[in-house]
Amino acid sequence: MPQTPYYLIDKARLLPNLEKIAWLREQSGAKSLLALKCFATWGVFDLMSQYMDGTTSSSLFEVKLGAEEFGGETHAYSVAWADDEIDEVIRVSDKVIFNTANQLRRFESASAGHVRGLRVNPGVSTSDFDLADPARPFSRLGEHAPEDIEPVADRISGFMFHNNCENADFERFDAMLGMIEQRFGHLIKRMDWISLGGGIHFTGEGYPLDKLAERLKRFAGENEVQVYLEPGEAAITNSTTLEVSVLDTLHNGKNLAIVDASVEAHMLDLLIYRESGHVAPNDGPEEWMICGKSCLAGDIFGEFRFPKALAPGDRVSLEDAGGYTMVKKNWFNGVKMPAIAIRETDGTERVVRDFGYDDFKAALG
Amino acid sequence: MPQTPYYLIDKARLLPNLEKIAWLREQSGAKSLLALKCFATWGVFDLMSQYMDGTTSSSLFEVKLGAEEFGGETHAYSVAWADDEIDEVIRVSDKVIFNTANQLRRFESASAGHVRGLRVNPGVSTSDFDLADPARPFSRLGEHAPEDIEPVADRISGFMFHNNCENADFERFDAMLGMIEQRFGHLIKRMDWISLGGGIHFTGEGYPLDKLAERLKRFAGENEVQVYLEPGEAAITNSTTLEVSVLDTLHNGKNLAIVDASVEAHMLDLLIYRESGHVAPNDGPEEWMICGKSCLAGDIFGEFRFPKALAPGDRVSLEDAGGYTMVKKNWFNGVKMPAIAIRETDGTERVVRDFGYDDFKAALG
Repeated sequence: MPQTPYYLIDKARLLPNLEKIAWLREQSGAKSLLALKCFATWGVFDLMSQYMDGTTSSSLFEVKLGAEEFGGETHAYSVAWADDEIDEVIRVSDKVIFNTANQLRRFESASAGHVRGLRVNPGVSTSDFDLADPARPFSRLGEHAPEDIEPVADRISGFMFHNNCENADFERFDAMLGMIEQRFGHLIKRMDWISLGGGIHFTGEGYPLDKLAERLKRFAGENEVQVYLEPGEAAITNSTTLEVSVLDTLHNGKNLAIVDASVEAHMLDLLIYRESGHVAPNDGPEEWMICGKSCLAGDIFGEFRFPKALAPGDRVSLEDAGGYTMVKKNWFNGVKMPAIAIRETDGTERVVRDFGYDDFKAALG
Repeated sequence: MPQTPYYLIDKARLLPNLEKIAWLREQSGAKSLLALKCFATWGVFDLMSQYMDGTTSSSLFEVKLGAEEFGGETHAYSVAWADDEIDEVIRVSDKVIFNTANQLRRFESASAGHVRGLRVNPGVSTSDFDLADPARPFSRLGEHAPEDIEPVADRISGFMFHNNCENADFERFDAMLGMIEQRFGHLIKRMDWISLGGGIHFTGEGYPLDKLAERLKRFAGENEVQVYLEPGEAAITNSTTLEVSVLDTLHNGKNLAIVDASVEAHMLDLLIYRESGHVAPNDGPEEWMICGKSCLAGDIFGEFRFPKALAPGDRVSLEDAGGYTMVKKNWFNGVKMPAIAIRETDGTERVVRDFGYDDFKAALG
């Protein structure tokens, strides 16, 4: 077993998500592209690429990683492309999706002959956290008005809508898609492909996958378009843990255990969105606050139940540590970065990347 | 001039901070150690080490970096040391500071013969943000009760108090130090050295440096201790900018400019603490929201005034980008990490570290 801390990606727990994705494609025709912004640990791309159609991206580097390690279709999106990267973006990708009509015009000749799309912001979303809400006031994410899209519609063959966010509610998805069709339907009908983005939690327990398949198939048929989905979290949900060890315990009004990792450095979204991590089964008479080892006062993974009191050396698995974790890990406090390990379906674990002092030092000069 | 994005550390702007630090030592006898958790860009340590006495740390890797690149006195503190790192910590540092009496006992024989200290939490602080408040309820940062410290007091020669946080108010600092003396004075008198931590904004405009010097000198004299300060932000405040370029502009209720960097990836604390960045002089008839290029809806540096409308290619300097930025930068969205550049006192700029696709890929596998 590797030494803690490490992220552990369990292929056996990844598979059920991938099988749902493949089933959805079979039933609906919708292709799924992995959103690298959420998960880009390329050591498991060999497995994922058997079930998914390719990758989508938020930057040139993600475009390159997708093309190089995942293969299939490579969608290139960025909130803004730079002059000095557009040529490589075009060369490496299958489609380029511009965030604004402005960017499309700027790179019109550079992208001539390439499959082009435009991000459209329907002005509705499911995010209840303003930070992550693409429909927030003054949003810079995509074109909002049909009249701004109309003039460039003949230069593109597809749209990307991305307005779901951890949306586990099919009815809400369905209603929003209806609104999109109502407002942009005349433009959608002129396109060959439509990406409905990510944030649809369709691999979750109890999600009505058959209804989603029917809805996507109907949308594709009525509009005569190829539908794409861009699952991030949905593709890897529940597949990954952060394995840590208790280094010290103390009691200051509560039972506190300090572990060899850090929320801010290794599971940043828990801090940004003020959420708690998870342990399983989270059961037993002992309640402990699991704290990180950074200097941050609020470096806390959460409060969980355990069968017995924790002590130095005890192992803790933090669940659901795959999405938006490894892609955001950082060297805050110089805390050792968790290694990245993969558990094969036969149960063997292997470390695919370890991080050491030299990596820390090289990050700073 | 390097290509944007890059952090630019300006030695001419660093110097006034360093000169104040040196003056304070001269007047008060208090030594200052750079807090690497805030700033660890070792390309300017040659300059900083001429004015400061060494470094303090939050992890083994920071201890090593301080000893290797800064020199002087190396204080080794961590919220929790691991069994497999304590020997190296002892070998590389001048002092080891334990977070709890528990850790001191655990590593008592490993640290025998070394200068040892203990973090003490006085239960008061100046932080008005719970995340960063070491005195928050159930805090794991340091020992709180004199009766828990008493039994190990003969095994250590110093304490570290760290309860200031961007505190620009000398009277508040003075009052808190009085409280510390009242509660822990009998223990302090048994020590040889006391670190008063960081977070005292004594290099800021108008700070009564002479009063601070007098207070520190009196504290040192009355208690017969060597005083240490651990400036982070105070050492580098106003020295560094994040240099970015506008990639796209749009108008959606406000004027929006998208630049080639990202708040979450490159100036993370603006996001965590929901603060705005700064530009100078922030003047003129045009008001623009400066937005990052990540996919995050809330990736916004702030709203600033400019003499004329922004356009692609325009340069923007984000001020005060030195503290808690480079040490926390990450590969979110695969957005190119800003290079690190230094402006020498003669005005020449040189890049000391650039980051590319290979660094991105290597962070993930």
